[in-house]
Amino acid sequence: MGVVKSNSSRRKFLSVLSAGLVAGAAAGFTGGRLLTPTAPPLGKELVEIIEQRKLELIHARAALKTYVPGGWKDEFLMISSGGHSGQVLVIGVPSMRLLKVIAVFTPEPWQGYGYGDVKTMKLLYKGSNGIRLLTLGDTHHPEISRTNAEYDGEWAFIGDKLNARIASISLRDFETKDIVKLPNTQTQHGGACATPNTEYVACGSQFPAPWEPGKGYKPGKTYIKLTEKNFEEFFRGTANFIAFDRKTGRFDLSRSFQIELPPYMQDLEVVGWGPSDGWAFMNSINTELHIGGVLEGKPSLEVGASKNDFDYLHIINWKRAEELVRQGKYVEMNGIKAVPLDVAAKEGVLFFAPEPKSPHGCDISPSGRYVVIGGKLAPAVTIYDVEKIKDAIRNQRFAGTDRYGVPVLRFEDVKAAQIETSLGPLHNEFDDKGRGYVSCFIGNTVDQYTLGPPDYTGDKPFTKIGEIPIHYNVGHICTTESNSPSPKGKYLIALNKWSVDRFVDVGPLLPQNFQLIDISGDKMELLYDMPIGIGEPHYAKMILTTKLKPWEVYSPVGFDPETFEVSPYAIKKGQERIERKQENGKWVTEVYATLIRSTITPDIIRVKQGDLVRIHLTNVETTKDATHAFAVSEYNVMASVEPGETTTVEFVADVSGVFCFYCVEFCSPLHLEMAGWLEVEPD
Amino acid sequence: MGVVKSNSSRRKFLSVLSAGLVAGAAAGFTGGRLLTPTAPPLGKELVEIIEQRKLELIHARAALKTYVPGGWKDEFLMISSGGHSGQVLVIGVPSMRLLKVIAVFTPEPWQGYGYGDVKTMKLLYKGSNGIRLLTLGDTHHPEISRTNAEYDGEWAFIGDKLNARIASISLRDFETKDIVKLPNTQTQHGGACATPNTEYVACGSQFPAPWEPGKGYKPGKTYIKLTEKNFEEFFRGTANFIAFDRKTGRFDLSRSFQIELPPYMQDLEVVGWGPSDGWAFMNSINTELHIGGVLEGKPSLEVGASKNDFDYLHIINWKRAEELVRQGKYVEMNGIKAVPLDVAAKEGVLFFAPEPKSPHGCDISPSGRYVVIGGKLAPAVTIYDVEKIKDAIRNQRFAGTDRYGVPVLRFEDVKAAQIETSLGPLHNEFDDKGRGYVSCFIGNTVDQYTLGPPDYTGDKPFTKIGEIPIHYNVGHICTTESNSPSPKGKYLIALNKWSVDRFVDVGPLLPQNFQLIDISGDKMELLYDMPIGIGEPHYAKMILTTKLKPWEVYSPVGFDPETFEVSPYAIKKGQERIERKQENGKWVTEVYATLIRSTITPDIIRVKQGDLVRIHLTNVETTKDATHAFAVSEYNVMASVEPGETTTVEFVADVSGVFCFYCVEFCSPLHLEMAGWLEVEPD
Repeated sequence: MGVVKSNSSRRKFLSVLSAGLVAGAAAGFTGGRLLTPTAPPLGKELVEIIEQRKLELIHARAALKTYVPGGWKDEFLMISSGGHSGQVLVIGVPSMRLLKVIAVFTPEPWQGYGYGDVKTMKLLYKGSNGIRLLTLGDTHHPEISRTNAEYDGEWAFIGDKLNARIASISLRDFETKDIVKLPNTQTQHGGACATPNTEYVACGSQFPAPWEPGKGYKPGKTYIKLTEKNFEEFFRGTANFIAFDRKTGRFDLSRSFQIELPPYMQDLEVVGWGPSDGWAFMNSINTELHIGGVLEGKPSLEVGASKNDFDYLHIINWKRAEELVRQGKYVEMNGIKAVPLDVAAKEGVLFFAPEPKSPHGCDISPSGRYVVIGGKLAPAVTIYDVEKIKDAIRNQRFAGTDRYGVPVLRFEDVKAAQIETSLGPLHNEFDDKGRGYVSCFIGNTVDQYTLGPPDYTGDKPFTKIGEIPIHYNVGHICTTESNSPSPKGKYLIALNKWSVDRFVDVGPLLPQNFQLIDISGDKMELLYDMPIGIGEPHYAKMILTTKLKPWEVYSPVGFDPETFEVSPYAIKKGQERIERKQENGKWVTEVYATLIRSTITPDIIRVKQGDLVRIHLTNVETTKDATHAFAVSEYNVMASVEPGETTTVEFVADVSGVFCFYCVEFCSPLHLEMAGWLEVEPD
Repeated sequence: MGVVKSNSSRRKFLSVLSAGLVAGAAAGFTGGRLLTPTAPPLGKELVEIIEQRKLELIHARAALKTYVPGGWKDEFLMISSGGHSGQVLVIGVPSMRLLKVIAVFTPEPWQGYGYGDVKTMKLLYKGSNGIRLLTLGDTHHPEISRTNAEYDGEWAFIGDKLNARIASISLRDFETKDIVKLPNTQTQHGGACATPNTEYVACGSQFPAPWEPGKGYKPGKTYIKLTEKNFEEFFRGTANFIAFDRKTGRFDLSRSFQIELPPYMQDLEVVGWGPSDGWAFMNSINTELHIGGVLEGKPSLEVGASKNDFDYLHIINWKRAEELVRQGKYVEMNGIKAVPLDVAAKEGVLFFAPEPKSPHGCDISPSGRYVVIGGKLAPAVTIYDVEKIKDAIRNQRFAGTDRYGVPVLRFEDVKAAQIETSLGPLHNEFDDKGRGYVSCFIGNTVDQYTLGPPDYTGDKPFTKIGEIPIHYNVGHICTTESNSPSPKGKYLIALNKWSVDRFVDVGPLLPQNFQLIDISGDKMELLYDMPIGIGEPHYAKMILTTKLKPWEVYSPVGFDPETFEVSPYAIKKGQERIERKQENGKWVTEVYATLIRSTITPDIIRVKQGDLVRIHLTNVETTKDATHAFAVSEYNVMASVEPGETTTVEFVADVSGVFCFYCVEFCSPLHLEMAGWLEVEPD
């Protein structure tokens, strides 16, 4: 069923195209002089389309550069946050087509995520905060698992800023496998970032949380009255290193640790490799410790947090922290080993370096040598040299400490360069030629600059060399496999916050705008505007498609995507049955069902009101794309059962009646007949 | 900020392009004979891209036909169901870009839909079934409001098959305004379909619901034991005509009516105009009245519902039904006036005509003369002549009645034609040249045929004239403004259920595939494959973009999108305040807040545990795209506040602590500082 791409047919087309282009173009330009009867007017066809649609040359170039015919594969996949949709987006590049929205923090019925499917309900409950079932998220920073710091395409990670959680996603089936709430943390921003071999996923707090001394923060349990004094004394941030098990896809808090941080607003984070191996870096914003209070006669946070000229780049020796934990120098709080702030400050775990106020973006050059920060309020990118940082620390060259005793390095001791850019430089990414790119929110540009050696060894290091306008208000940018030792160049995507006039209007809530930019040449070239009308993505990672090894179906039949093993509840066709029994004094009707085009067996399920109904669904299909889904009318129950999968839905038959259930995926000509009845006899 | 489209620059480009195409192509094809120094190699650039990317001519054509530069507007908007995502998709055509996912039946945090925002919470509760809060849907058939049967672009409608509901959506702000559960109905499929001036939105049942005689069906209240005898006697379908108020966007059950139908599985529905004005048509499937029961020794529904050679096309005189209701010939049941089946059968409301078994699609030709049915199990499209139907009814020419006393017409009396097609003809749409198109699920094609007069007056009426392969398993199709008197031709979109090998794999759950097909010429041409990785769309409507008049911002500031008036809770900058008071013996903290880049005022909200917290949020911005959003950490609260909007979030401060709230839309360089604190003092 693949597309025909034989070399001979293509050669023929190109040859005919050339002839036609000559003939067609000539007809308009040189008075038909070359319009011979043997040259079919194929090129003329293209000119006619261009003319009829009033396209400019730049549009024709962009169209031809981005069109990916059906059956062909996009070169890159973008794993993008979905912002406050709570989900993760998977986008093909350069076609800029949305291939899948992965349900992560928000229930989503198409994927049967959070609608009675036991594995996803368990996940959502486990990943909540102990106060209530959380059914939303604000996803910001995705990550892809790494081997030797390179993206390996096995797992993805995403953070929830709003509730300080991280999730793991398998890139075999593109499903969420685990969600963990970061202990002692209320909101989160920096990361997820994997350590070079994905031993840990690092993620820092955003706003500090109230901590009880020695007890930390527990949602719904910890109360500290909000005053300036209490904020300084009792509120704390965290740097978390959450252990990840590559085999099961699960996080393991028992092997994880966190570092207590001052109540500055920690921001973006990155974990190093090469010369920066063992180190993590993290911005901060509100070193003024301002808490706002406009109606209480105080300046707003916007004003109060912008007073100081410098905030603090957090420099974290995470391998040293790991060592301290091994030595027992931690406090166990709410299920995690926390290295206290004074220990981190004294024992060589935490250092600060001044950074331009209210910075954003914290990224590492491909060599691992440079840490690059967006100035945001100053028109400059600030670049730190990791060798200088390590040297200053080794030689204990500090300007002093902050109010919590954390050693502060001298800016001039650790700075590599500052590069002047357009206004509002925000986030940096890199290419395969030693060049950096920075989004400039206020200037509405992406600027291009050179790094220094060893990333860039040409003339004029640390110099701005180009810029391209974007539309409009660019937040993060994403280049191919940036923030790894081997960026691939070629494409940059600007994640623009506003689209204004770029698309057909769809009411006051407009889509975001992903702009695809060609960075392969000397001059950046805008290729495509992709509207994102499904959330507000913050950051994305792009990976070569060839690195991924997705499953086509679940195999063998009966596979449980939660355990990665054959489910004990899997059955074969012919083994369908209904069992009614007591469990802990409660009546349970347990159904073993199969799904195959176009029958759900059993198709009549009779239960008694009040029964717990547990339906094990096995899709016995082995054909790719032969997904079935199962929904019960009036009961808010929905499961997606992919080919080969066994899954279980569970609900209490709390109301009596006769309710239709049916396959919700249009699976065959008799799909409408793939249905049955749940009879709930009144008690 | 618009794109440069000056005529002079375009002419220059075309002229240079022609020159370049000659020069560039010639270089490869005629040995450089025409490569003059005066012709810049612009055309060569295009040839190089085509060559480098190994594109075929058909790909280059498609790329140039579908690329819509940023700043340009798509010619058509597609309003598409989102299947069991429960939402509605808005897609630009021909660029096939997803502009917005409109939250309808499923909560969605980005739009602040169902996360503490009072207007959306009310909507979701009101639109549930009285048993439980429904938080999902299975959207199938969208509709656009009509004036004189033409799409007018003011409102959209969508049905929820799973729970028998319909929703209205304003095409000013692309937000859901109303959801209504169809009384006495459990599942729904046929429609939404607007009557010619949107007096009613018609929508029929799918699976029949158990009815108590004279009392109908009430979810959770009605129980009838499921037996073959009871199914025939006590289960019923419905045809609903739900009154719609164009001014408020609300449905009005008090002015609505329904018609009791036999317990056949009613399927797709259409409402006529012109010669079919006043009539509605609806397929049915299971006239065998089979209920399945595989484990009880009975054939499955798939087998049992396919026994008869014919099912019944339902022919409904809805204006006659409206008249009967005016005459009081109805029973009021569960809030709607229901015309009993025997009354409908006797009083000229309901007729049947035989139709090929298990049909799908029920559509009316542009003239309003022909009703066209997909055969699904037979390789033929069946076309009924409305004039013949009316004539037979007028002359009381019936073959007899069905078991419920409904008059049955003779097939030969009402048939206009049957057209042989590929296997599995499923759904028909039409163009501006009197041609019909039918999706063939099994044959994997879209077939093109001619209608008869007055739609098509050329040679060979009712004849298949073309076909194009699709990829794969096409369900519905959608042409521009089909199912109205004035289809626009030009594009057809095949809503394919399987994508298999068309895109990069993203695990066992694959996207659907919308294929854009050019139907403007003599031969259909495939232009684009669009993955839909966010639900399983069933049907879509395409409308000329120029017909829409969307709002850019809410105006004046303080506008309430629920009432379409200025909110009584709207405030100006400087009027922010916090009030604590008792309401019905309970403490309420009421907050009047403003949002403007980059401050939420008030930024500290102190309440007591147990307070009902009601926060009125006014986005005082008047700039297009300056949306803010408001979320509270750990509290599962999220609101989207578009420029000029006033909205209210409400929640109980049930747990104590200090919780961060912030603007969730990246709105400015100091967006991260647009935040504050909710202090909940323990009781």
